Amino acid sequence: MLLKELREKVYEANMQLPRLGLVIFTWGNASELDPETGLFVIKPSGVAYDELTPEKMVVCDLDGRRVEGDLNPSSDTDTHAWIYRAWADRGIKGVVHTHSSVATAWAQAGRDLPAYGTTHADYFYGPVPCMRGLTKEEIEEAYELNTGKVIVSGFEERDVDPIAVPAVLVRNHGPFSWGKDANEAVYHAAVLEECAKMARDTELLSPHCGPAPQYLQDKHYLRKHGPNATYGQR
Amino acid sequence: MLLKELREKVYEANMQLPRLGLVIFTWGNASELDPETGLFVIKPSGVAYDELTPEKMVVCDLDGRRVEGDLNPSSDTDTHAWIYRAWADRGIKGVVHTHSSVATAWAQAGRDLPAYGTTHADYFYGPVPCMRGLTKEEIEEAYELNTGKVIVSGFEERDVDPIAVPAVLVRNHGPFSWGKDANEAVYHAAVLEECAKMARDTELLSPHCGPAPQYLQDKHYLRKHGPNATYGQR
Amino acid sequence: MLLKELREKVYEANMQLPRLGLVIFTWGNASELDPETGLFVIKPSGVAYDELTPEKMVVCDLDGRRVEGDLNPSSDTDTHAWIYRAWADRGIKGVVHTHSSVATAWAQAGRDLPAYGTTHADYFYGPVPCMRGLTKEEIEEAYELNTGKVIVSGFEERDVDPIAVPAVLVRNHGPFSWGKDANEAVYHAAVLEECAKMARDTELLSPHCGPAPQYLQDKHYLRKHGPNATYGQR
Amino acid sequence: MLLKELREKVYEANMQLPRLGLVIFTWGNASELDPETGLFVIKPSGVAYDELTPEKMVVCDLDGRRVEGDLNPSSDTDTHAWIYRAWADRGIKGVVHTHSSVATAWAQAGRDLPAYGTTHADYFYGPVPCMRGLTKEEIEEAYELNTGKVIVSGFEERDVDPIAVPAVLVRNHGPFSWGKDANEAVYHAAVLEECAKMARDTELLSPHCGPAPQYLQDKHYLRKHGPNATYGQR
Repeated sequence: MLLKELREKVYEANMQLPRLGLVIFTWGNASELDPETGLFVIKPSGVAYDELTPEKMVVCDLDGRRVEGDLNPSSDTDTHAWIYRAWADRGIKGVVHTHSSVATAWAQAGRDLPAYGTTHADYFYGPVPCMRGLTKEEIEEAYELNTGKVIVSGFEERDVDPIAVPAVLVRNHGPFSWGKDANEAVYHAAVLEECAKMARDTELLSPHCGPAPQYLQDKHYLRKHGPNATYGQR
Repeated sequence: MLLKELREKVYEANMQLPRLGLVIFTWGNASELDPETGLFVIKPSGVAYDELTPEKMVVCDLDGRRVEGDLNPSSDTDTHAWIYRAWADRGIKGVVHTHSSVATAWAQAGRDLPAYGTTHADYFYGPVPCMRGLTKEEIEEAYELNTGKVIVSGFEERDVDPIAVPAVLVRNHGPFSWGKDANEAVYHAAVLEECAKMARDTELLSPHCGPAPQYLQDKHYLRKHGPNATYGQR
Repeated sequence: MLLKELREKVYEANMQLPRLGLVIFTWGNASELDPETGLFVIKPSGVAYDELTPEKMVVCDLDGRRVEGDLNPSSDTDTHAWIYRAWADRGIKGVVHTHSSVATAWAQAGRDLPAYGTTHADYFYGPVPCMRGLTKEEIEEAYELNTGKVIVSGFEERDVDPIAVPAVLVRNHGPFSWGKDANEAVYHAAVLEECAKMARDTELLSPHCGPAPQYLQDKHYLRKHGPNATYGQR
Repeated sequence: MLLKELREKVYEANMQLPRLGLVIFTWGNASELDPETGLFVIKPSGVAYDELTPEKMVVCDLDGRRVEGDLNPSSDTDTHAWIYRAWADRGIKGVVHTHSSVATAWAQAGRDLPAYGTTHADYFYGPVPCMRGLTKEEIEEAYELNTGKVIVSGFEERDVDPIAVPAVLVRNHGPFSWGKDANEAVYHAAVLEECAKMARDTELLSPHCGPAPQYLQDKHYLRKHGPNATYGQR
């Protein structure tokens, strides 16, 4: 069996999603890339979390084709694959998709998630962008692949660094997040949902308060990330 | 004892309702039809979930009359019966009623639940309609039966297919949902509540954002349903 | 030891409050009246729920004076006592006070809880009234006793029947509820919180939708209450 | 090992934070001062709660320097230290910082938390103030220390007594709370989050209702605090 250890890791990452309250039923999926082989392991499509096992995970290549496994891979496989194609060389080796409740509401509202405070700035350096919707043609031609393309080109066009902002809102759909492995991508999915709740309530309390000052965002992001980081144990 | 196996299934479906956070106390009921006998099994009225057993389930005919069981059937039995009468030949053999918190708020607000995103479109092909309120006469004459009639005729008048939109909001009351069995009806009740939360928050964040584009709804609904579905394991 | 059995019942009723998510820390209390002796059993003041025992419950008379027990009774004892004085002959023998989150928000907003739907009408026949605030003089003279007096006279002035509407919102403070025993008063406290959530969301979705039609409220209230009730097992 | 008993207490206080739903991941920290030695014990930086042990707690002096422990202390250590420097002689020996969801939203909105009712007044005598944001210079010079200075000088300038209002909202960041020990500081953090939720909902229901009357706030605060307190067991 290919990538036995990675199957375990990806299984564990997927199982965290319902535990963290980010998905119900089958509404999410996590994957991780093995950079040596260029293959990634992903959740099978439509399988309930309490029926998952490491063996049921599916191995795919970067064209989203199943390489090993009896089950169909997640319907979002082509989106994961494109993100790895574009950004694996930046160190992105884990991707997560959920329909977590409040982040999805921001995606449905078609709005960027503003950086209202330090909770956000500790993980996302600037707003989490909401992508343009796919066109009818993009959807009909290759929906899941084009979702990946809209994400990657959207970050390029808006000059957003996917390392500094490891999440996105797909218009009328929901969030994707990523990280150095599946576990970190899950972590970012949970942070995103929490920031989405706080930002919703912030606007209820003060609709026009504006984002946190840039120098505060700088301080928080840079005390956790980069060469001069001081947070945690180093 | 009639329909022993079905009693177990309906018992299990009912017990899922509090576990999924859809009901407290006795505020919900699930039933399932046995197409061979034309009888259905339903929760007894006003019995707490932790006192339920498969044996306490009540067997009724399609006039809502108790055929077997010591306990009175759910007060909503006539509504279930009418839905089976109208739609069993479409394959609808499970019905659920809850007072889940946010779906009920939409029903109290008297509003259709808009299809703001793909979470909704994966299960409901278009808005979940809110029915007109019953008249004083309809309520006094045969409240629960007429609730069923308003649902069925409301779907007809608005040309909504109950297979494509397996849930409804009853004005000032709360949601009903259905499916191919009681278990699927419970599933749709949970999806509805989740979509109701997301839609509430979507409107808080962008009051006039409008529904998801029709071609996106088409894509999501049709990738999970119908002859060309690709989602899950087939 | 006086009223041993009643201590057990009141202990159990108090322990339900944190389990139902209605109180944290020491923020609530339940009591029940023994009509034979004219005494009631109530939670001691400021004792955490996980340190409660039936023996720690306090027995008081209808002047709110401690008759048995080493601990001080709840600071709200005089409010409970006055409710029993006024309404015990109507069959009210259980009282509960909580600071449950959303019902308290309605009390802080100084607003009656409207009867937006059947969930409400199944238990409360009309709006749950919010009382006028106490005057400075009433607060300084006998705060807790006068809270009881404002409740009882408020129901009289507004011609609300405490049997038909077994709960109240005390302005800038929070809810009290009651019933035929402590257990039913707890039940009404939980229903009130759930209706308070639904009503908040109803107004977010449709600020001017107005209450449910009176004939629908009549139907629901009267199918659960009174001589012609059909709900449940009778 | 220094302050063995205090390490246990501070460990327990930290472990309460996720249990009370106030923090996820590593998003909070509790400390307590030992007045004899002038040292305080605090959570290590960036360590997950389920990996904490009493031995991993870090001992610091009032300049925020680590005196004992292998791990770096919380990145907020200098803020805790300054609060002890300023207010330990007032009896403040426990400090807590969280990013609890709704209190953080108030901080992001840049608004004082109004005293809308008695739940608030039982613990906070007046609004919980939101501090001015730190300047760019203050952030770049000594961010965490200056956060402490802005809190202490903010209370002085606004003439707020930190004993009567044992919590603060740091602009665009989140809440700090304090008390006579770490456990009481945790308690105040939980009360603050609950009051923040109630106040958000109060404004949704009645945007201009204004705070509770001063004489009601006086009654509630003074029945729990000071020489004439009657609440609880004394």
